[in-house]
Amino acid sequence: MRSMIPDYLDGALSDVAADDSGETARYIPELAAADPDRLGAVFATVDGQVYGAGDVEVEFTIQSISKPFAYALALLDRGFEPVLAKVGVEPSGEAFNEISLEDRTGRPLNPMINAGAMTAHALTGPEGSGPAARVERVIDGLSAFAGRRLRVDEATCASEMEHAHRNLAIAHMLRSHEILTEDPRGVVEGYLRQCSVLVTARDLALMAATLANRGVNPLSGERVVGERVVRQVLSVMATCGMYDAAGDWATQVGIPAKSGVAGGLIGALPGQLGIATFSPRLDAHGNSVRGVSLFERFSSDMGLHVMEVPPAARAVVRSNRVHGDAEGAVRVLRLQGGIRFAGAERVVREVTDRPPAEPRVVIDVSAVYSIDDVSRRMLLEVVRRLTLEGREVYLVDPEGIVPDPDPGEGGRLTVVDAVGEIQTHTDHAELVAVVGGGEVHAAERAW
Amino acid sequence: MRSMIPDYLDGALSDVAADDSGETARYIPELAAADPDRLGAVFATVDGQVYGAGDVEVEFTIQSISKPFAYALALLDRGFEPVLAKVGVEPSGEAFNEISLEDRTGRPLNPMINAGAMTAHALTGPEGSGPAARVERVIDGLSAFAGRRLRVDEATCASEMEHAHRNLAIAHMLRSHEILTEDPRGVVEGYLRQCSVLVTARDLALMAATLANRGVNPLSGERVVGERVVRQVLSVMATCGMYDAAGDWATQVGIPAKSGVAGGLIGALPGQLGIATFSPRLDAHGNSVRGVSLFERFSSDMGLHVMEVPPAARAVVRSNRVHGDAEGAVRVLRLQGGIRFAGAERVVREVTDRPPAEPRVVIDVSAVYSIDDVSRRMLLEVVRRLTLEGREVYLVDPEGIVPDPDPGEGGRLTVVDAVGEIQTHTDHAELVAVVGGGEVHAAERAW
Amino acid sequence: MRSMIPDYLDGALSDVAADDSGETARYIPELAAADPDRLGAVFATVDGQVYGAGDVEVEFTIQSISKPFAYALALLDRGFEPVLAKVGVEPSGEAFNEISLEDRTGRPLNPMINAGAMTAHALTGPEGSGPAARVERVIDGLSAFAGRRLRVDEATCASEMEHAHRNLAIAHMLRSHEILTEDPRGVVEGYLRQCSVLVTARDLALMAATLANRGVNPLSGERVVGERVVRQVLSVMATCGMYDAAGDWATQVGIPAKSGVAGGLIGALPGQLGIATFSPRLDAHGNSVRGVSLFERFSSDMGLHVMEVPPAARAVVRSNRVHGDAEGAVRVLRLQGGIRFAGAERVVREVTDRPPAEPRVVIDVSAVYSIDDVSRRMLLEVVRRLTLEGREVYLVDPEGIVPDPDPGEGGRLTVVDAVGEIQTHTDHAELVAVVGGGEVHAAERAW
Amino acid sequence: MRSMIPDYLDGALSDVAADDSGETARYIPELAAADPDRLGAVFATVDGQVYGAGDVEVEFTIQSISKPFAYALALLDRGFEPVLAKVGVEPSGEAFNEISLEDRTGRPLNPMINAGAMTAHALTGPEGSGPAARVERVIDGLSAFAGRRLRVDEATCASEMEHAHRNLAIAHMLRSHEILTEDPRGVVEGYLRQCSVLVTARDLALMAATLANRGVNPLSGERVVGERVVRQVLSVMATCGMYDAAGDWATQVGIPAKSGVAGGLIGALPGQLGIATFSPRLDAHGNSVRGVSLFERFSSDMGLHVMEVPPAARAVVRSNRVHGDAEGAVRVLRLQGGIRFAGAERVVREVTDRPPAEPRVVIDVSAVYSIDDVSRRMLLEVVRRLTLEGREVYLVDPEGIVPDPDPGEGGRLTVVDAVGEIQTHTDHAELVAVVGGGEVHAAERAW
Repeated sequence: MRSMIPDYLDGALSDVAADDSGETARYIPELAAADPDRLGAVFATVDGQVYGAGDVEVEFTIQSISKPFAYALALLDRGFEPVLAKVGVEPSGEAFNEISLEDRTGRPLNPMINAGAMTAHALTGPEGSGPAARVERVIDGLSAFAGRRLRVDEATCASEMEHAHRNLAIAHMLRSHEILTEDPRGVVEGYLRQCSVLVTARDLALMAATLANRGVNPLSGERVVGERVVRQVLSVMATCGMYDAAGDWATQVGIPAKSGVAGGLIGALPGQLGIATFSPRLDAHGNSVRGVSLFERFSSDMGLHVMEVPPAARAVVRSNRVHGDAEGAVRVLRLQGGIRFAGAERVVREVTDRPPAEPRVVIDVSAVYSIDDVSRRMLLEVVRRLTLEGREVYLVDPEGIVPDPDPGEGGRLTVVDAVGEIQTHTDHAELVAVVGGGEVHAAERAW
Repeated sequence: MRSMIPDYLDGALSDVAADDSGETARYIPELAAADPDRLGAVFATVDGQVYGAGDVEVEFTIQSISKPFAYALALLDRGFEPVLAKVGVEPSGEAFNEISLEDRTGRPLNPMINAGAMTAHALTGPEGSGPAARVERVIDGLSAFAGRRLRVDEATCASEMEHAHRNLAIAHMLRSHEILTEDPRGVVEGYLRQCSVLVTARDLALMAATLANRGVNPLSGERVVGERVVRQVLSVMATCGMYDAAGDWATQVGIPAKSGVAGGLIGALPGQLGIATFSPRLDAHGNSVRGVSLFERFSSDMGLHVMEVPPAARAVVRSNRVHGDAEGAVRVLRLQGGIRFAGAERVVREVTDRPPAEPRVVIDVSAVYSIDDVSRRMLLEVVRRLTLEGREVYLVDPEGIVPDPDPGEGGRLTVVDAVGEIQTHTDHAELVAVVGGGEVHAAERAW
Repeated sequence: MRSMIPDYLDGALSDVAADDSGETARYIPELAAADPDRLGAVFATVDGQVYGAGDVEVEFTIQSISKPFAYALALLDRGFEPVLAKVGVEPSGEAFNEISLEDRTGRPLNPMINAGAMTAHALTGPEGSGPAARVERVIDGLSAFAGRRLRVDEATCASEMEHAHRNLAIAHMLRSHEILTEDPRGVVEGYLRQCSVLVTARDLALMAATLANRGVNPLSGERVVGERVVRQVLSVMATCGMYDAAGDWATQVGIPAKSGVAGGLIGALPGQLGIATFSPRLDAHGNSVRGVSLFERFSSDMGLHVMEVPPAARAVVRSNRVHGDAEGAVRVLRLQGGIRFAGAERVVREVTDRPPAEPRVVIDVSAVYSIDDVSRRMLLEVVRRLTLEGREVYLVDPEGIVPDPDPGEGGRLTVVDAVGEIQTHTDHAELVAVVGGGEVHAAERAW
Repeated sequence: MRSMIPDYLDGALSDVAADDSGETARYIPELAAADPDRLGAVFATVDGQVYGAGDVEVEFTIQSISKPFAYALALLDRGFEPVLAKVGVEPSGEAFNEISLEDRTGRPLNPMINAGAMTAHALTGPEGSGPAARVERVIDGLSAFAGRRLRVDEATCASEMEHAHRNLAIAHMLRSHEILTEDPRGVVEGYLRQCSVLVTARDLALMAATLANRGVNPLSGERVVGERVVRQVLSVMATCGMYDAAGDWATQVGIPAKSGVAGGLIGALPGQLGIATFSPRLDAHGNSVRGVSLFERFSSDMGLHVMEVPPAARAVVRSNRVHGDAEGAVRVLRLQGGIRFAGAERVVREVTDRPPAEPRVVIDVSAVYSIDDVSRRMLLEVVRRLTLEGREVYLVDPEGIVPDPDPGEGGRLTVVDAVGEIQTHTDHAELVAVVGGGEVHAAERAW
């Protein structure tokens, strides 16, 4: 059987291919000369599967799509506070090359406009590193996001530098506010090298997938940045990534995204996938015309909008039954699905609304798909409180979905692989714990 | 055992109680005279559980928190196109009472600023309904969100009207642009009645929970608005709900939210819960000081940020095994967890990478927690393609988690409650389907 | 002989008549329906001569041309400080109907934009006078400027009120900032009555001439406002009168001016004349197309630019001679022309550089055309210092061009009508003073 | 006798000396280190008299006061059209270092803000001249305005260049809009050299006096720029010279002016004098605190406001009499004073209202102080029309105050030095013309 995902991508490309509105960027010959009919789209899942259609291996310059990644590197290299002190996170509602500095401080409004992106570039690498070392660090970082060694398109870079008047203006303005503290020309040159890095749609999808995958490249397995950095970057992409049409994008597409003037466009779906499209004709905002169409279609076809409420799900508490009786009685709570706060709350409620009278309580998470940290903590607090009330508590967690299962002071928890109910020679059912390799045997511990 | 959620809320309130910075709104006596020390917080889950701490039953006026709900009603009553033609969705980066109209059209930038909120108010109810009928419709709608009949605080409303100069100015400006097409005074009066509706923190939490629950009030079960409206409203709250600090909120808290000048603050976590806090002292942006602190804490303590990438989860494909052999061989794919696009893709890949050679294929979703529409369609397409390749396909779905399981043209799918492997008198294992009440019996259908 | 001024005006009208670009104001039917081909121009000199060509007696509504006059009335009625506290004098660089309020105070930037004009209207008459009395006061005042009783066009006024949404918006905004302190609707109604006053091009020229004539209507002789008010009004017209093209006007035309949307346009040349044109087709700024052309021509043809440096003039000191000798010697300084500071300085220099040794000094101003206050004071100080040095000083001033000729403490000055040199029986010339009716006789006083 | 003008200046300085509010400019050490107590004021008349008090010979850098002069040089060197295409004339209402470019074109709003001043600097000298030649041309030009060779303060210039980030930003922005078409750094360096030219208060007063004197330096007699350039520069100084307080200055002081950050401040009174003050402490707008006080005082004490209406003057028509009778009758019109349009109109009226029946008409301008071009043309047209009606016309103009007295086609005019009435042997008075050296003799020509 063939996967239908390439078919889907082929169909999507074929549908938008007819739209030849928009124009390639005109400000430098290298961009103007791009083949305007190039068209490609790539999905990269958080476990590293890559689907592509069209021109997925054609190289083009990354341009502004480098901005969220360089911002991520700055946050990693310098920490949040120094970076936030110099670059804001507010949408500007303005075009990418507006100056958009805060009135008094001169702080760029966000890292997705050029002013903020140049500042973020200047904040990569260790403090005091020179322009050349910094460019190396950025290219290394972008390469880590992409999972392969990227290189600069020197012709484009040289041409950009010749037309960098506005960026030089912005950089000198930043220097005058002491947002930049070094020679502005070096920063602009470094920033333009960053923008001139060559990527393919496949690279971009993997870079986006690295964000969607909590900062770990799905193919190389390298942790490029941490989760807090990822959250910050995705939040800023969501509100500032699409310039002056931020609200339209947020309502209609709802995918944290970033576009580049060479025709690239990326989106990152937290926990799911990275998406990239490539089509060089741009609309008036400077976004790829067919790229925007593709994202609208992806969002609508696939329910990828971040404000899409997940559909009604099975109850987290699959069953709540008593096995055995008298002092041999065991209360068994079987949980299932993905547990976030609201699910954990339901478990708490189950235990508080129908407090178990039995001396032993089993919480079975073997059908649990995922559990987040607050839910883990809530579950362990339930365990602790049950212990304090005199109950013995067991956690059936064969795959260790609950990390570090320590219920804290006063709590006690026994983790087992499975429990089975067997009919013993006595006249009551007995619960049998399963641990280790999956062999069924009598409980090793006293219950 | 006592639930730890009230404890958590008590602790949170107690931690912020010491902060008495900020001031009650001063522009009308009714707000200025509010008891500044009031403090309450409520969680309402999407299945209707309500946790509260502090002043959860004290009534205060809803003020701007009515904005997202009235916007939802306008979208419901008039449809998206007419509403979007008159109210934008772009963040303004400005204070709530800035005029913030688009340059040429006079269209308010978004429905969370007063200009947009008055326009949204004017777009509730059927076209041509008078001011009084419209106010009734809005109060009905807010009541439906809250799940109880709400009423207007006449004293506050009268006082607001006396100080409505700026709103009258904005409304006349909207009239001059023909965004409003009726007497502006009537619209302002209606809008101020809307703002003067009395609510408790409990009401607000349930209103937010209705948004979190895809538009259905968790207690009354009433569908107030549809899912597309909810997605639109949540998107706009996410980008425009907190006025000029939208970016700070989006990065640090990451919960779609709205504040009111009487001290209320709500947040909605799609699929999880509604949150409300109440504390009348306001910061310079007009947001409740302690409310903002509480939300920061909730977001950080509980991983409620919308850009929080869910933690690594178990594989969607739990197992992929062959039972029996030769022409009796059955391929069984057991799935688990919540399946969205990325999960469905994994299933597709499993089938395409390791194409089943067996004549019968069983897809077991009995351990699946939830499945969204795109994943459902992908799964059914897998079924259709397997049929076309000559396979018989069975879906084990005892609770009907896959709605409308029609694989489309050329596809054939048999839905069963369970399959069991039994040792038959022949020397090969035979798969036994289970349907109906759970009784084990031989497969009724030919496989 | 026929005056060439009507010929000039006829020629000018005929030259611009071909230009039918622009459109009549469209926002109310009464203005839209105006005959677009109407064309008139009027010059009114400061001594009351009126030259007109074309449609000089056609009535139309005064509209924004009322603004400088109502501002003048407010300054007169309330004084400078209260008016300046509520209306600024800064150019806005914006269109007439922009709100243009100062950020914090809400003070309108200047009285030529609608916000400032409505505020100025509200500041006419005594404090506390109601809307009706205030309208009366304004119409009285405009009538005094025009020199005839003006009346309101009720149809236009009613129509304006129906389309007053933007003005109502602005007025409510002013009320919210407490720039207005009463019901905004009453102010808007009064302001629109002010704008609906019917005038002819002749009226407008006389109104402008009243400003050019230091506040005194040249025909009626009525002092409408004082000189300080006139200076303030002319200054504001010079910088803010032509809206967003203020700088173009200031450099190219250089005449303090004001236009109205019904097609009127006025200019005031201090000390010379008032000009008015009438042609209803408007350019994109809302100024009369042919009116602007006419003013450009007038300014260029006639050297009316306020920054036009007057041509090189004859020396102020016409002669400086000694008559007679010994103790009979008289120093006679004959002055001429218009004396402002620079001329008076020249006189001072003449006396200080060549200090008169003679016991008697005659200063003859009978050929002086005009003298301003600072020059008068400087001349009298010269007299005082000469007295203190022991000189007898005479002022020949037959027409009293030097008012209040008191040289102050220690000074002494004898004013005479003429001096004549006669050959006496002694062998020296003797100076003979002439006073009274022009008859020559011996000096009555001892010199 | 001592002149009272130095006394006046001494008194003015002494009155403001006590005000030590404000601070010296802080952005470079050279300015910060200036002696803040320096105080000087200079008047320079259009005929070259210079009065000073206080620190009139202390050198300081000219800074922004160079702007109007460099703008004048650009207008001279390149012509109006190319300069206006690149620099506007609209007030910006913003601080000097705001970017203030027009939205689409990037054209600086006016030449008094840095963006416009740098553009004007780049437009001095012949097109294509390099930075060094251009700086030479500007320094030459400024020197010509001042009447002595000026030089650059190299230390200040070097320091300015080190802190030129904002100016570099602006210049690069201008380059990006192709307002500048060369390396921005060269322009900034040249502009900063221009700003670092050393002047004294005396120099500045003479520079201003050159503007007041129609472009001719009063001492050197050199014509630096033409009258149209002067008018343009004065107009722009009037509306844009004092940055964001333009309206306050225009209403309260009313003198076209320009300030510099080193403490200089100049004003130019067309036809009268140039004024300069020097006091390094600056207010929040960057204007010299005591300089502003001094100008307010000068304006108020001396009636120097450009909108000051000149006081009522003597009639231009001094007398209108008939001498002789029958065919020997002569109509004699004696004119006086300064004649601008309004005066010439009065002469026209005299002739048209009381048309001379006499065969000969004498127009005596020997008491006329000055006459502008439009008045000259009107007078000559009167002559032409009288000729056409059969009159012989004589102009008594001993000092040639009416240049080029050609009445045009069909007109005939005889210019004489004087006319005298003598009793002849016939019984009628005969008019005797006087020409040449003042000797009385019979008319040489036939009348």
